[in-house]
Amino acid sequence: MSTLLIADGQVLLPEMEVVEADVLVDADEGTILAVGSDLATADETLDASGGLVMPGLVNAHCHVAMTLLRGYADDKELDAWLQEDIWPAEAELTSEDVHVGAELGLLEMIKSGTTAFADMYFEVPEIVDAVDDAGLRARVGHGVVTVVKDDEGARADVDESLSVAREYDGAADGRIRTAYMPHSLTTVGEEYLRESVAEAREDGIPIHFHANETTDEVDPIVDERGERPLEYADELGLLTSSDFVAHGVHVDETEIDLLASRGTGVVHCPASNMKLASGMAPVQRLLDAGVTVGIGTDGAASNNDLDMFDELRDAAMLGKLAADDASAVSAETVVELATKGSADALGFESGVVEPGANADLAVLDLDAPHLTPPHDLVSHLAYAARGSDVRHTVCDGQVLMRDREVLTMDESAVLERARQYAADLAERAA
Amino acid sequence: MSTLLIADGQVLLPEMEVVEADVLVDADEGTILAVGSDLATADETLDASGGLVMPGLVNAHCHVAMTLLRGYADDKELDAWLQEDIWPAEAELTSEDVHVGAELGLLEMIKSGTTAFADMYFEVPEIVDAVDDAGLRARVGHGVVTVVKDDEGARADVDESLSVAREYDGAADGRIRTAYMPHSLTTVGEEYLRESVAEAREDGIPIHFHANETTDEVDPIVDERGERPLEYADELGLLTSSDFVAHGVHVDETEIDLLASRGTGVVHCPASNMKLASGMAPVQRLLDAGVTVGIGTDGAASNNDLDMFDELRDAAMLGKLAADDASAVSAETVVELATKGSADALGFESGVVEPGANADLAVLDLDAPHLTPPHDLVSHLAYAARGSDVRHTVCDGQVLMRDREVLTMDESAVLERARQYAADLAERAA
Repeated sequence: MSTLLIADGQVLLPEMEVVEADVLVDADEGTILAVGSDLATADETLDASGGLVMPGLVNAHCHVAMTLLRGYADDKELDAWLQEDIWPAEAELTSEDVHVGAELGLLEMIKSGTTAFADMYFEVPEIVDAVDDAGLRARVGHGVVTVVKDDEGARADVDESLSVAREYDGAADGRIRTAYMPHSLTTVGEEYLRESVAEAREDGIPIHFHANETTDEVDPIVDERGERPLEYADELGLLTSSDFVAHGVHVDETEIDLLASRGTGVVHCPASNMKLASGMAPVQRLLDAGVTVGIGTDGAASNNDLDMFDELRDAAMLGKLAADDASAVSAETVVELATKGSADALGFESGVVEPGANADLAVLDLDAPHLTPPHDLVSHLAYAARGSDVRHTVCDGQVLMRDREVLTMDESAVLERARQYAADLAERAA
Repeated sequence: MSTLLIADGQVLLPEMEVVEADVLVDADEGTILAVGSDLATADETLDASGGLVMPGLVNAHCHVAMTLLRGYADDKELDAWLQEDIWPAEAELTSEDVHVGAELGLLEMIKSGTTAFADMYFEVPEIVDAVDDAGLRARVGHGVVTVVKDDEGARADVDESLSVAREYDGAADGRIRTAYMPHSLTTVGEEYLRESVAEAREDGIPIHFHANETTDEVDPIVDERGERPLEYADELGLLTSSDFVAHGVHVDETEIDLLASRGTGVVHCPASNMKLASGMAPVQRLLDAGVTVGIGTDGAASNNDLDMFDELRDAAMLGKLAADDASAVSAETVVELATKGSADALGFESGVVEPGANADLAVLDLDAPHLTPPHDLVSHLAYAARGSDVRHTVCDGQVLMRDREVLTMDESAVLERARQYAADLAERAA
């Protein structure tokens, strides 16, 4: 057995208590062996002195290849933004663009302490390949849109999503898991949803889709069907405890109760919801009802970064505004949502520093003005820390970044490729 | 004449255009001499290659000494937070605590590219002294509260604020300017306001106060006086073009028109307004009406950092949500608000990179995953950049930070002092 010791730091325990302790990792199994003092010596040691060992952050909703479009178009209404900018650019995306964009996003994640994520996009094999090399953990899938396609095209899109989910589950030494990913209830036709959900259920494939992000997505369903979108989703069999939906901004009490009783996770994307003026998700009400809530960045085109520390801060602040209550969505809550909450939504045994859990960890450097004084480190994680404070990143027991040097990727080569491909793409899409 | 050349970078011009250029600075006068290529050689050079030279950020509303209370109490309603935590802690604050807290905040500002700020607190001479040493620019004042004091105490508080404003204006080689700072319209009695505003006007002293932050601050005035708070303020002579108010969350059209016609600045504090669930300021409406708008962090106890890049992002995102319009409060807008907008509100000739302006500058490192690809650098400033991207900070022509090493302060000594004083304070206040 090859072991890794993360030594001499403070450790954030699952109950949000901070203690001085070492963390011993089984690097072969990729799991945490022990948290405490006087642990065994290890084959490799990471210095956590002056730092905080915490669970790696879990970005529960992303389109990582869109990092190539960061800053490509901003400050537009969702419809205009998609139709005038994002979709034309995406129509030009090659499989190589997807690979290069994914690499850029993965690099950013590693450098900001994210160790696992969920991703919905196309050219999924490219994303799988990039994740395999980078060393992160992910639940990936192919996003299905049928409304703009003929029947043959629609069926091909559905089939690709299902076959990708079957083929790549367990790839990258088990770090890759998959899901069937219909884009949303308004962009995939009912007949395709009915057939494909049945197929996914037969094979035990989880399902991830966008739900109730904007009123434009809710109102047509209410008008046409006389029921709320998540009631419709439930009838289709789309809400089980292995499924998770993105956004959940415009949900009513009936839908909140449905999500809670079905055990379906909701991924809150506060930055994207603000930037696209989608609205404020009722996060405290979701939590009070017992819904599993995770946090995600969404794509870099609507955020515009993949730094989950921004998302913690945004979630705590927006959650208070949504609840009209400064005591809502506390610092402890958002730290838990972005670690264990997201991991639970995705079905990963990550997000906690305790024996048996996946060794997906970040070590934060605390010796900085903006993290001083140390009245409350959990508050600092929620409100003051940022991705650049991360010293080391570990996933599945492997060190992905040591002293801010990414070991699994050539950072300058990734940046240079991204600049070239982005410039070429912008020229083609212009 | 001693000169400084900021060489080989890109430069953000006032019209939000980015060009390749050098910036030549008169280090004695503290002003920008030229922006262009083939400029004269200089006594000192700062390397901006691979970087962006931009105006230093201007934090237009702060309580810098409160940085000592970062994370001291969070996630509570404003009243409980003030009465149970902040005021008891502030009652224990010594002048040394204020000095140490200010140093910590100034260090954080320099490291995150802020070159000027407005500050309302007490023990102002300590803050003046710390600002003098750190090398920043500031408009400072003593916050007056009369409602909990007897007449003698109230008058002493007013007198201190006026005398501080007179005594320290022009200190630190002119980098310190002052203002008379009644805390708010509900915490300072009408008779004291009438007398003191007249005195301030006689001496040409600008006025800064908190206005319309919460409905709890608006409703009592409407109920008692039958008029809006800013109508009352206007009658008191508190709204002139040299004055600026913090927050302006709950303002109606009449008040917006008043602010515009009087030329009074409004400092938007999005993070504080979200964290305390105060509400959403109508920033786009203020701008459409022609109001001068700046951006501020408020104190670190309600933010919880002084990184103005967070504030740009928050302002753009919250502004869209408040307007229910994703095209509101654009990236260009928030970059302008946090530089020229704030500088205009404070009455500083800063916030633009152009000849004649104060040489208050930040150089941002662009070679980072989260700032790649460079589709739009102004978008990156608003949505993706963070304080840790700042390579050099210059104020009044002097280099305060070079290659992330702060030259005017001993960083580790400041952090160590802050930790000690904060721990002692927490013990005394417990």
